[in-house]
Amino acid sequence: MPPAGPALDFWFDFISPYGFLASLRIDDIAARHGREAQWHPLLIGVTVMKVMGLPPLMQTPLKKDYVPREIARYCRRHGIAIARDFGKPPMNPLPAARVMAWLLANEATCAKAFARAAFADYWQRDIDLDTPESLRQSAARAALPKAAIDAALADPQAGTLLRAEVDRAVARGVFGSPFVIVDDEPFFGVDKMELLDDWLAAGGW
Amino acid sequence: MPPAGPALDFWFDFISPYGFLASLRIDDIAARHGREAQWHPLLIGVTVMKVMGLPPLMQTPLKKDYVPREIARYCRRHGIAIARDFGKPPMNPLPAARVMAWLLANEATCAKAFARAAFADYWQRDIDLDTPESLRQSAARAALPKAAIDAALADPQAGTLLRAEVDRAVARGVFGSPFVIVDDEPFFGVDKMELLDDWLAAGGW
Repeated sequence: MPPAGPALDFWFDFISPYGFLASLRIDDIAARHGREAQWHPLLIGVTVMKVMGLPPLMQTPLKKDYVPREIARYCRRHGIAIARDFGKPPMNPLPAARVMAWLLANEATCAKAFARAAFADYWQRDIDLDTPESLRQSAARAALPKAAIDAALADPQAGTLLRAEVDRAVARGVFGSPFVIVDDEPFFGVDKMELLDDWLAAGGW
Repeated sequence: MPPAGPALDFWFDFISPYGFLASLRIDDIAARHGREAQWHPLLIGVTVMKVMGLPPLMQTPLKKDYVPREIARYCRRHGIAIARDFGKPPMNPLPAARVMAWLLANEATCAKAFARAAFADYWQRDIDLDTPESLRQSAARAALPKAAIDAALADPQAGTLLRAEVDRAVARGVFGSPFVIVDDEPFFGVDKMELLDDWLAAGGW
């Protein structure tokens, strides 16, 4: 069956629990409507902190107490186990995001599988993926081609590719994780997944 | 039929469009599950700006462009007309919030009707309600007892009552508009209305 419409774009940061939760559903939602989801790395340290001037979620009074409760509720509802403690400082997401940007540009068929593996390792196995070795191990567990990961880790262009991804995202108004744009309509937050599903079913407005 | 459980608490700020949208549904959702919704005034200028240290939504880069699109989409989906232009500076919400706090303490049977009228005037008729005269007119249009509104406007205790409401809210972890707590479970944002409905139907977890 040919696609029912153009691909949708899905942005996430590996250190965003909401991004992880959305990553578990976005492909199914897109596929239900004959769409493809194109995954993009985002750095909320750039968009939220630098561009928007906001503090990290887990350093925001009141909200830092609410977020873990909301995520625990979401996980119970959807039968998802998260191993990582929210109180723990996040890993540095740059190395994983750089690999993702490089794969998208050079080995696109591996990119989504890499992101899924990294998300699962970080949130469900509580493994920080901020060194070349930890990224190689994560990719190996997901049976990704070793040559592609090695090339991504070795290429200084990875950083440039990631910056270009983030710049393009900001230019399109993307600021948080998860964020989806489909047919020029923006959806921010994992709580928009059902709405996105309905919106695609209705074929827009 | 006796209530199926304790009342739920619903907080809103009159200048919050999301609070207005939630106000249109919260009583129906509560009633469907044999609950009552108790409405409380909140000041996001205190919770979001002072306690959390965040800028107003409509002064936050990227988010200020997203919010009007999300609200327009919500209104189309739910058949709601909003007259107020988001680019316009908000009214001073203090006078209306003070009246609400006074009514809750002294004429509780009028409080919800006052809040509904004020929300409709502000968001659907684009009328600022930040003077005694505008508040009197709003209450008169809703056929509320003139004596109650006059007493609320004349009583210097109204400010103290509002401060106590906001302090109690912050002590319970409430920060944004809309916010609901039911059976100790917190729900933030109008996009949680369906989830709240499901949660009440399931009787908790």
